[in-house]
Amino acid sequence: MASEGEVVSNKQVILKEYVSGLPKESDLQVTTGSIKLKIPEGCNGILVKNLYLSCDPYIRTRMKNLQLKGAHVDSFQPGSPISGYGVAKVLESEHPNFKKGDLIWGITDWEEYSLITEPETLFKIQDKDMPLSYYTGILGMPGVTAYAGFFEICSPKKGEYVFVSAASGAVGQLVGQFAKLSGCYVVGSAGSKEKVDLLKNKFGFDEAFNYKEEQDLNAALQRYFPEGIDIYFENVGGKMLDAVLLNMRIRGRIAVCGMISQYNLDQPEGVYYLANIILKRIRMEGFLVFDYYHLYPKYLEMVLPKIREGKIVYVEDKAEGLESGPAALTGLFVGRNVGKQVVVVADE
Amino acid sequence: MASEGEVVSNKQVILKEYVSGLPKESDLQVTTGSIKLKIPEGCNGILVKNLYLSCDPYIRTRMKNLQLKGAHVDSFQPGSPISGYGVAKVLESEHPNFKKGDLIWGITDWEEYSLITEPETLFKIQDKDMPLSYYTGILGMPGVTAYAGFFEICSPKKGEYVFVSAASGAVGQLVGQFAKLSGCYVVGSAGSKEKVDLLKNKFGFDEAFNYKEEQDLNAALQRYFPEGIDIYFENVGGKMLDAVLLNMRIRGRIAVCGMISQYNLDQPEGVYYLANIILKRIRMEGFLVFDYYHLYPKYLEMVLPKIREGKIVYVEDKAEGLESGPAALTGLFVGRNVGKQVVVVADE
Repeated sequence: MASEGEVVSNKQVILKEYVSGLPKESDLQVTTGSIKLKIPEGCNGILVKNLYLSCDPYIRTRMKNLQLKGAHVDSFQPGSPISGYGVAKVLESEHPNFKKGDLIWGITDWEEYSLITEPETLFKIQDKDMPLSYYTGILGMPGVTAYAGFFEICSPKKGEYVFVSAASGAVGQLVGQFAKLSGCYVVGSAGSKEKVDLLKNKFGFDEAFNYKEEQDLNAALQRYFPEGIDIYFENVGGKMLDAVLLNMRIRGRIAVCGMISQYNLDQPEGVYYLANIILKRIRMEGFLVFDYYHLYPKYLEMVLPKIREGKIVYVEDKAEGLESGPAALTGLFVGRNVGKQVVVVADE
Repeated sequence: MASEGEVVSNKQVILKEYVSGLPKESDLQVTTGSIKLKIPEGCNGILVKNLYLSCDPYIRTRMKNLQLKGAHVDSFQPGSPISGYGVAKVLESEHPNFKKGDLIWGITDWEEYSLITEPETLFKIQDKDMPLSYYTGILGMPGVTAYAGFFEICSPKKGEYVFVSAASGAVGQLVGQFAKLSGCYVVGSAGSKEKVDLLKNKFGFDEAFNYKEEQDLNAALQRYFPEGIDIYFENVGGKMLDAVLLNMRIRGRIAVCGMISQYNLDQPEGVYYLANIILKRIRMEGFLVFDYYHLYPKYLEMVLPKIREGKIVYVEDKAEGLESGPAALTGLFVGRNVGKQVVVVADE
């Protein structure tokens, strides 16, 4: 274990330049620099050792040159490490909210050690009987995303028909389980037989299908939803959204969490059947988890007992070592991961 | 005036067959049949003389072979008269809610005299100091549409930036005036210089532009909304929607009232920039006026004094005679009308 004030080597995952198209491992570079394990004079921050890093689809958005006025999401800097959600251990703190030894989750850089100069947005981990990596997933950002998107945006009612795309991912697997706990009928789509099996056998989806094996997504949805879809939890966009629009029911709700199929396209695909939202009175709403973190305590109160009782499960795909970061992250966009993709930087 | 029991000639506007593409006058036919001015034995309906018929974009939807399960909107029958909103006078009634001489508005057939067998959904006209034709517009379905869409779906706040497309139409001209009364900044688009002048000089829009003269709708919107758009009242769809998505502000709202640019296309246009609704947390909601008629009394209470005080104005485009119906209706889809398009069937 490194001691305070020591200069240690610090591996980092650097964005080489803005990405267009499908991100490749070679768009990222693992470099080794060094860091002095000491908070600079006058800095009110904390020094952490990163333990787990979270591979999330939204990261792709930050890998391009974004120009979105006031959207509170900005681009990474080429030549600098990328950042994202992670779990870390506090080595030293000059901030009153944190002390040495605390475990936290929140935004950190993709590197072994980080100086976090504005730690106010970090969450302190209280429930340490859980696997720490869960704080990149079910107990972290994706958990609140699934919870807010499903319960706040979709307002599910017992007996409703729910469809989840990218259903075995970090968020989708939770939405499906929340839907079942709410008494809904839920179908998920995913991109491999292994994932479809997980959905049906591990997460308790009523049905699941491999979208890559469907010639006609509209026909697939008609097969699984002869009565139509009340709630669509949108993770993929593009052709799937179009097929869903054709199959929505009156007063359906679409929570738009992500559109992973579109992030790597220079020109996004067209969506053709939007006029359905008029006659069917559909509400379609985009959301970002940042707006819902006030629900985190309430969410933990709901989900922790359910995890302990085995009523909600969570599947992770762990890549070992920061060196595996570029492959793990870029694998997300071709669906290589099975479950929530995590990079293990260090054991506690 | 025809007397009870008399057989009179009855002109009708007939749909010849299902329409694809832009509706032409020749898709409709004015025929002359006859009707006995007597309610058949055992029928609990009313017999009316139609005075005004309303040309509304949604009618286009019913001119094709719709197959929308449970959407409460069905196709017209080729060979039969089309129907729509109208204002009529009761000639005879076997229904307890209506008596001879009552004026009503609601769904009626495009013909001179109609037997309405289920008059329960009709509205009785109480305020007769208003021009009767207003009950096809500001005091009828388009009025409630504008009111519900703007106030219920968009929840406007003082100072917000509002954009209305098809802004000089039956609904748009009202939305713009409601927005001004709510302390919003409002810009409208329309398809001719005459309409743009109306928007600015008659309806009090802050700005207006002719979309046909803009090479780049995105640039036009950037010009009129340097701060972006909070509320979009959507009447047209297609390319305009895409340009709006690029210019929406965080937590913007889009009330989807119609997509008139798409109704005549066999294959709708793609919408490419939907992913904006995630980062910008946009809510996009389709609605139908049927769900909001319970607000009609509240709406009348608001709007009638404002009309009487001249604080809200309404512009109509009146076509004289049922024979002019096919031209008036099809003109709507090329923007020939200036203001709310009404067909005058008969004077009271």
